Amino acid sequence: MLRAAADAFDRGGYEGTSLSQVSKAAGMSVGALTFHFSTKADLADAVLREGWEVTQAALERVTGQQTPALRVIIDLTLELARLMEENVSVRSAVRLARERPATPAWSDSWLPTVRKLLDEAHRSGQLREGALPADVATLVEHLTSGAEAYTRERRDTGPEPDTGHQSAVGRLERVWRLALTGVSASGNPVPATGTATDGP
Amino acid sequence: MLRAAADAFDRGGYEGTSLSQVSKAAGMSVGALTFHFSTKADLADAVLREGWEVTQAALERVTGQQTPALRVIIDLTLELARLMEENVSVRSAVRLARERPATPAWSDSWLPTVRKLLDEAHRSGQLREGALPADVATLVEHLTSGAEAYTRERRDTGPEPDTGHQSAVGRLERVWRLALTGVSASGNPVPATGTATDGP
Repeated sequence: MLRAAADAFDRGGYEGTSLSQVSKAAGMSVGALTFHFSTKADLADAVLREGWEVTQAALERVTGQQTPALRVIIDLTLELARLMEENVSVRSAVRLARERPATPAWSDSWLPTVRKLLDEAHRSGQLREGALPADVATLVEHLTSGAEAYTRERRDTGPEPDTGHQSAVGRLERVWRLALTGVSASGNPVPATGTATDGP
Repeated sequence: MLRAAADAFDRGGYEGTSLSQVSKAAGMSVGALTFHFSTKADLADAVLREGWEVTQAALERVTGQQTPALRVIIDLTLELARLMEENVSVRSAVRLARERPATPAWSDSWLPTVRKLLDEAHRSGQLREGALPADVATLVEHLTSGAEAYTRERRDTGPEPDTGHQSAVGRLERVWRLALTGVSASGNPVPATGTATDGP
């Protein structure tokens, strides 16, 4: 039942999902469904809770490692990407958290841990000089959003033959490798032209 | 009228928007609205077209610069972030492209240009050795998705007093600076523990 609800919310969003759709997908009557969840909001809350709990469990699993903090952060983002690919409750919870007003953002469940790990990585000299923990945290947020967007797009369109079957986790691993060592040959930021920020 | 439609789709998504909502927001009757757009799908197509055109114009503006290809790519992503923040047609088109089946992804409108620029940056030695154009393209996709997610979240919740008024463009600039020079102190990828990919 929760699985059918998660799948419906994941595909249709909160607005695009009805209790009758969920009951049909779960093979039960609307009456039987509303016996457990009287409103769509209740059902969405249950899916959110489930997705949040799965995320918390992953967080505890990954942060239990005896590895450098920076490595733990990377593994955590890879694990989050894997969950978004494989776990419909998590993917659905991420979407519901974004679409429902007054719902905490999904990142609230893991970003504080990332920030703590980044401070540790900074203190123990794992970050390059000039790499501020706050900026790395922002990078982590961007990468996680990117993994979600890719997973969602790929689920909707199916893998294209010419791009191969790239997993969101595999893509994220390659992006991390790049971001850790740097994109630019000079090792310095390319001088700004100011076009983007001074534009009309 | 198109502006009201873009705003409605941006906030409610395709499923969460009705023609009567749009006509009300535009201050016209449903009859007057459907005189121009007979169905919600037609209206969404018009918003998508508008957002796509604005994106194309930005693309032409930024790629006209006489600057190194890598810098053009960075400016392009900053400009896309700025459009998502400031232009409701673009933001709405990005959401509609994601939510409507059989609609080309928004990235189809600019990613081919980024790939071309990356090949040029690679050929002219602007990329660090080992930084593959395909991986930088994936990074660009992640960063752009991240900017959209942040813009959307911030629009829904409003700026929080303790985090300050960070713009998506400003965040992206800092993330680029970091990604260009690299996150890791050793300049090498942190050794993988394999937890994320070997997990259950």
